[in-house]
Amino acid sequence: MRAEIISIGTELLLGEITDTNAPYLASQLPLLGIDLYWISQVGDNKARLVEVLKRAWQRSGLILTTGGLGPTEDDVTREAIAELLGEPLRTESVLEDEIRGFFAQRGIEMPLSNIKQAALIPSAEPIHNIQGTAPGWWVERDSRILVAMPGPPIEMQHMWHEEVLPRLRQFSTEAIIFSKTFKTFGLPEAKVGELVSPLLCSANPTLAVYAKADGIHLRLTAKAESQKQAEEMIINCAASIRTLLDEYIWGTDNDTLEAVVGRLLVEKGLTLAVMESGTGGLLAATITDVPGSLEYFKGGLVAPSNDATVAYGVNAKTISEYGATSPEVAQAMAEAARLLLGANVGVSITGVEEMEARSMGTVYIGIDNGKSRRVIKGNYPGDRTRVKRRATTAALFELRKTLAAPDQI
Amino acid sequence: MRAEIISIGTELLLGEITDTNAPYLASQLPLLGIDLYWISQVGDNKARLVEVLKRAWQRSGLILTTGGLGPTEDDVTREAIAELLGEPLRTESVLEDEIRGFFAQRGIEMPLSNIKQAALIPSAEPIHNIQGTAPGWWVERDSRILVAMPGPPIEMQHMWHEEVLPRLRQFSTEAIIFSKTFKTFGLPEAKVGELVSPLLCSANPTLAVYAKADGIHLRLTAKAESQKQAEEMIINCAASIRTLLDEYIWGTDNDTLEAVVGRLLVEKGLTLAVMESGTGGLLAATITDVPGSLEYFKGGLVAPSNDATVAYGVNAKTISEYGATSPEVAQAMAEAARLLLGANVGVSITGVEEMEARSMGTVYIGIDNGKSRRVIKGNYPGDRTRVKRRATTAALFELRKTLAAPDQI
Repeated sequence: MRAEIISIGTELLLGEITDTNAPYLASQLPLLGIDLYWISQVGDNKARLVEVLKRAWQRSGLILTTGGLGPTEDDVTREAIAELLGEPLRTESVLEDEIRGFFAQRGIEMPLSNIKQAALIPSAEPIHNIQGTAPGWWVERDSRILVAMPGPPIEMQHMWHEEVLPRLRQFSTEAIIFSKTFKTFGLPEAKVGELVSPLLCSANPTLAVYAKADGIHLRLTAKAESQKQAEEMIINCAASIRTLLDEYIWGTDNDTLEAVVGRLLVEKGLTLAVMESGTGGLLAATITDVPGSLEYFKGGLVAPSNDATVAYGVNAKTISEYGATSPEVAQAMAEAARLLLGANVGVSITGVEEMEARSMGTVYIGIDNGKSRRVIKGNYPGDRTRVKRRATTAALFELRKTLAAPDQI
Repeated sequence: MRAEIISIGTELLLGEITDTNAPYLASQLPLLGIDLYWISQVGDNKARLVEVLKRAWQRSGLILTTGGLGPTEDDVTREAIAELLGEPLRTESVLEDEIRGFFAQRGIEMPLSNIKQAALIPSAEPIHNIQGTAPGWWVERDSRILVAMPGPPIEMQHMWHEEVLPRLRQFSTEAIIFSKTFKTFGLPEAKVGELVSPLLCSANPTLAVYAKADGIHLRLTAKAESQKQAEEMIINCAASIRTLLDEYIWGTDNDTLEAVVGRLLVEKGLTLAVMESGTGGLLAATITDVPGSLEYFKGGLVAPSNDATVAYGVNAKTISEYGATSPEVAQAMAEAARLLLGANVGVSITGVEEMEARSMGTVYIGIDNGKSRRVIKGNYPGDRTRVKRRATTAALFELRKTLAAPDQI
């Protein structure tokens, strides 16, 4: 079945709110084996909405709309569907009673305009809305299904989950879609694409490459009759990806780098301290985003200037001799963080000057466990915020590598 | 001019990412007096993209696309526009040199597939992309403008702001829309709405209230023939807002709290140091997002546990006597940060235990300038990330208040 989502509301076209309903529904459809081909946003304008609905009716077997079911004049979804199908709108007394009941329960008089929400067309069945006054519409005609749901995400999600999803399951005799994502860091998108290009031509499973803030992601998607069959279909391709990109892969699916690093530290019973110049606290802030990070994170030192670096225990002579952005200072910072905070592992990020200049950001990342040490150089283009984010990701990636292969350090 | 936005990427149709580019662009168009009628999302499928572009070309004078300009095979925006207009794609050597330069600067060899990003059609002019390798396209033909921008929001927003917006201004001869935003912190949305309710009924200028991560924003929008006329139209209403919400307003328009605080520190020739528990480095990371923060920011100390707090100079007895989350410890942390880093003002945020418990986050914010001190208590609902963000915003808001009225401290 080929699906289409239409999000309705002028506030979407003014950029006042971001449409989160479409991505929510989009993420649900693969579970039903339904392919989504189109998403669009349209304002509270009946003529334009009818036009969008007509096109959807021509090309899609399942149309999901959200929004425009409210009681005010600019809520035109019901009218537009009635016009699309050439059917008359009639107030249903059962629905009217329900809406009156909703207000009575709250001790409020029902505004007259709410009666509008009790209207139906002959092809539409109402869908119960426990969270609000607007019932949804389930419309079946000409081998097509149109489902109109309310715009507020809580109402929509509840209606989807309790009412729409179970009904749609009965129509979904087709395949399910199963995805696995591999997350890499350290290679440009095009290079990853080149390496996996022999795998890109497969139609099922398919492989797609995406550039994300934390590196390049590869998504493997299989279409099959069952979850088990889909999982079997991707085994070979997943193994090839692992072989081709092994040293760059840091996680899968919902993993974050900071959580992966946290798990490794807990596993090995190690604690961590950091000292950062150019990233200004972002490394510590990212590490502490992980619930339970208290268990292994001993503290972070933010050093915007050499004075602070020295106050944290780095030898002033090392800085004057090699410069603040140097492998030697990175190493000294990692060691000083470890010692000052009594941690097993110290990690540092240098790089103040270049970032202030807002050109290419050069940083050195230092990792020190008291017995051995590594320093990694990085060059990151972009503005301040972007360089901070990339350097933080790089430091976590290098720390993960070190922790995963402890003989390296 | 009637505009249309097309967001391109299969990940949008799988619900893996939420399209934030369309709402960003949607919020920018009113400033140019351009009406947005349509937004749609389409996957990385050339045939379907060409179909969407054809419809847009028929009905819209301005088409903005984002995404699909990457180097991999599934990036098909260039090919689709070429097909739409029936023009051939040719590699431009100047663009190729620029892309090669981007990689050379980072000391990486350019993957061959990146050459694809140097392609143009005769009607397209390249738009410079300082943040990445993919140039945008500016296409003018048949009294229509099509602008293709990259998908990563940082690249897209930079290109929009620096290159596309200035060019579009020349085409915008219609009524202009002028907005002024007031940014407040410390009052709930409904309370702000109540206070300004007498101002909400005006049709021009209009007033809208939005809940954002850094507080409640009020946007005043006037439609007029000139910028000057629009500015005059909002004078009275702006004055009323200032009177009603004075102590809660911390900035306007593009202000960020961290930049406002930075300006005040520079004005007064003061330096700042911070110590934070529950926010785990987010306060320092936010302060250092401001270019030039090096001038006044002496450093940040992240204390996930009492051991770290003590290592930074807080008396262990104060912690055992009052508890880590107490006004006394907040005060001692602010003072210790100031002393350890030799700053004029110290700011602290306590609050480890409650955040680990992931329920309501109680924090104390301390501000100390060596002569006087303030401690403010805050309760923030929500998950870990949200509490961190709110506590950081609150600390910056209180610091701004203190700096703006120095006799308070």
